[in-house]
Amino acid sequence: MIMPFEETDSLGEFDVIRRFFYRHQFTPSKLKSIPKHTQDVILGIGDDCALLSPPPTGEVFAITSDMLIEGRHFLKGTNPTLLGHKCLAVNLSDLAAMGAKPVAYNLSISLPEINPTWLEQFSNGLHAIADHYHCQLLGGDTTAGPLCISITAFGHVFPKQALSRHLAQVGDDIWLSGEVGDARLVLGCRCGEWQLDIPWQEKSSRMDAPTPRIELGLGLRGLAHAAIDVSDGLLGDLKHLLKASHVGAKVWADEVPCSDLLKNLSMELRRLCTLRGGDDYELCFTAPQNNRALINTLAEHLHLSLTRIGEIVAPSDSAPIIELWDQDRHRLPEDLTQHYLKSFDHFQ
Amino acid sequence: MIMPFEETDSLGEFDVIRRFFYRHQFTPSKLKSIPKHTQDVILGIGDDCALLSPPPTGEVFAITSDMLIEGRHFLKGTNPTLLGHKCLAVNLSDLAAMGAKPVAYNLSISLPEINPTWLEQFSNGLHAIADHYHCQLLGGDTTAGPLCISITAFGHVFPKQALSRHLAQVGDDIWLSGEVGDARLVLGCRCGEWQLDIPWQEKSSRMDAPTPRIELGLGLRGLAHAAIDVSDGLLGDLKHLLKASHVGAKVWADEVPCSDLLKNLSMELRRLCTLRGGDDYELCFTAPQNNRALINTLAEHLHLSLTRIGEIVAPSDSAPIIELWDQDRHRLPEDLTQHYLKSFDHFQ
Repeated sequence: MIMPFEETDSLGEFDVIRRFFYRHQFTPSKLKSIPKHTQDVILGIGDDCALLSPPPTGEVFAITSDMLIEGRHFLKGTNPTLLGHKCLAVNLSDLAAMGAKPVAYNLSISLPEINPTWLEQFSNGLHAIADHYHCQLLGGDTTAGPLCISITAFGHVFPKQALSRHLAQVGDDIWLSGEVGDARLVLGCRCGEWQLDIPWQEKSSRMDAPTPRIELGLGLRGLAHAAIDVSDGLLGDLKHLLKASHVGAKVWADEVPCSDLLKNLSMELRRLCTLRGGDDYELCFTAPQNNRALINTLAEHLHLSLTRIGEIVAPSDSAPIIELWDQDRHRLPEDLTQHYLKSFDHFQ
Repeated sequence: MIMPFEETDSLGEFDVIRRFFYRHQFTPSKLKSIPKHTQDVILGIGDDCALLSPPPTGEVFAITSDMLIEGRHFLKGTNPTLLGHKCLAVNLSDLAAMGAKPVAYNLSISLPEINPTWLEQFSNGLHAIADHYHCQLLGGDTTAGPLCISITAFGHVFPKQALSRHLAQVGDDIWLSGEVGDARLVLGCRCGEWQLDIPWQEKSSRMDAPTPRIELGLGLRGLAHAAIDVSDGLLGDLKHLLKASHVGAKVWADEVPCSDLLKNLSMELRRLCTLRGGDDYELCFTAPQNNRALINTLAEHLHLSLTRIGEIVAPSDSAPIIELWDQDRHRLPEDLTQHYLKSFDHFQ
């Protein structure tokens, strides 16, 4: 409100919204399994508020927010199409971790300048993933400032099926979807943290264009107890789940699924990337042992690997919250476990 | 995710959330007329998503987002308590303009550093206004970066009573709540845009701690057709309403209510502040002439002045969308009208 821009461009704030963010209809999606929800939006972009219908009887809204800032969450010069994809994907990943079905989202964005080419690409990436998951843009805010993208996403879930973090039970298996560690590998290579003579560029999309595990979250309704999406690092995120559930865990460190590229690196680097990594956006969930067969069937149905990586144990004042065990079923030293537990913290 | 902070402080991201943003219960509010809504929040801060119950039968969610950035929406060094108040107030103002009852909000904040004193004051200001309007913090995101506050607020409204911008009708009166222009006056004085030997500091709260007109919005359900909150400037915001409703307006420029301080300044400065100003957070609404008596009764009940400032007219290809008329019922020249219509645009 206070400091207007210098008049350097003929496009104004409202032109930007009209040209790049208004959608009049959805593009048909390839994902037929998730029903459309356009009828939920009574009033969309362009008023003081959007109006969103309540979910069908018995369901509630799952709501999540993530903010991405240039130089913190993504590097300056990041491909705008991929950025548009990623900023919604990380929010949808949180909906997936709750077992919620995406419905709509709000976008607040601050831009250093009006660059129509950048905006065209960014909004294309954003709209493509939004259409794919039938997730409608409701409204938001557009302002001048450092590049910062703040999204709040809405989904539907039955409260009794919500995969809350505090529902893990002693005896549960701990499962992980897909593979983890490639995003961390790519980040390290890009930033020169390590020099590796391997085709790491092949894995760039794991960092730049993560896939939110929406179908998995929906499939786990009634099968899993608790879930979390792996965004800040597997062990650190698992620790949040364990603390919320007041339980501990044994994790088989070397059974954590990863790509062949990571498997061929040193054990030290592999464990760093898989256990402490970050930016994976896989789901880590716990489920009763009785559901193993059903979960394996779900994995086949979704063409997505689901791997058991540990078990939930009773909490103990004397034992650490997570015990790591190697492939020979030897326990890893406590200091090494603590090292891998240090997931990403924006202020540490 | 990418660029961690230097380790300069012992408080981490999750400590900040726990210490400053967790609320275990609401403080009793002075505002008895708005019922509490804590029961709406099934699951609050601390999971992948919050879970929010659907509104009572027939109501829908009104959803709005506003992003405030240091150096754009507020000056560096702004009192953190006032900032905490204002960042939610501007969102609640949008709910008011839809006639919605506040229920909950999400907060995403990026901070240049962890400053416990600043955070304490900011969260106090935020929680005070949130408690006053029974608006519960659901969750959000905390990250390192330039100071940027992004809020998405949720309210309840019956769709048929929503004061959407596109519902103004020819013949409607145009009303304005309270007084406008003081926030713009204060901004000009603070920034040295003009030097005035008047006690403008008395009006600082109009810029720093605006009052969202929630009770007015609720009272206008069934009385008003269309509404907008005056955030970017009266005429510019009114223009958005007129365009959405495909109508025009006649506005009595010198009947726009303002403080005695503004009344005693030159006509030019007064009109600049009241018509083009910004940051007022009053409601501009349209209502059938038949409802004048009821609206005046509402004004008395709320102890809030409500002033008729014009009328909605049929759109015309030859006439401008807004005609300004002075106190002697002479039409103001078109170039002057255009000057006052230039409300704030972040990119112009």
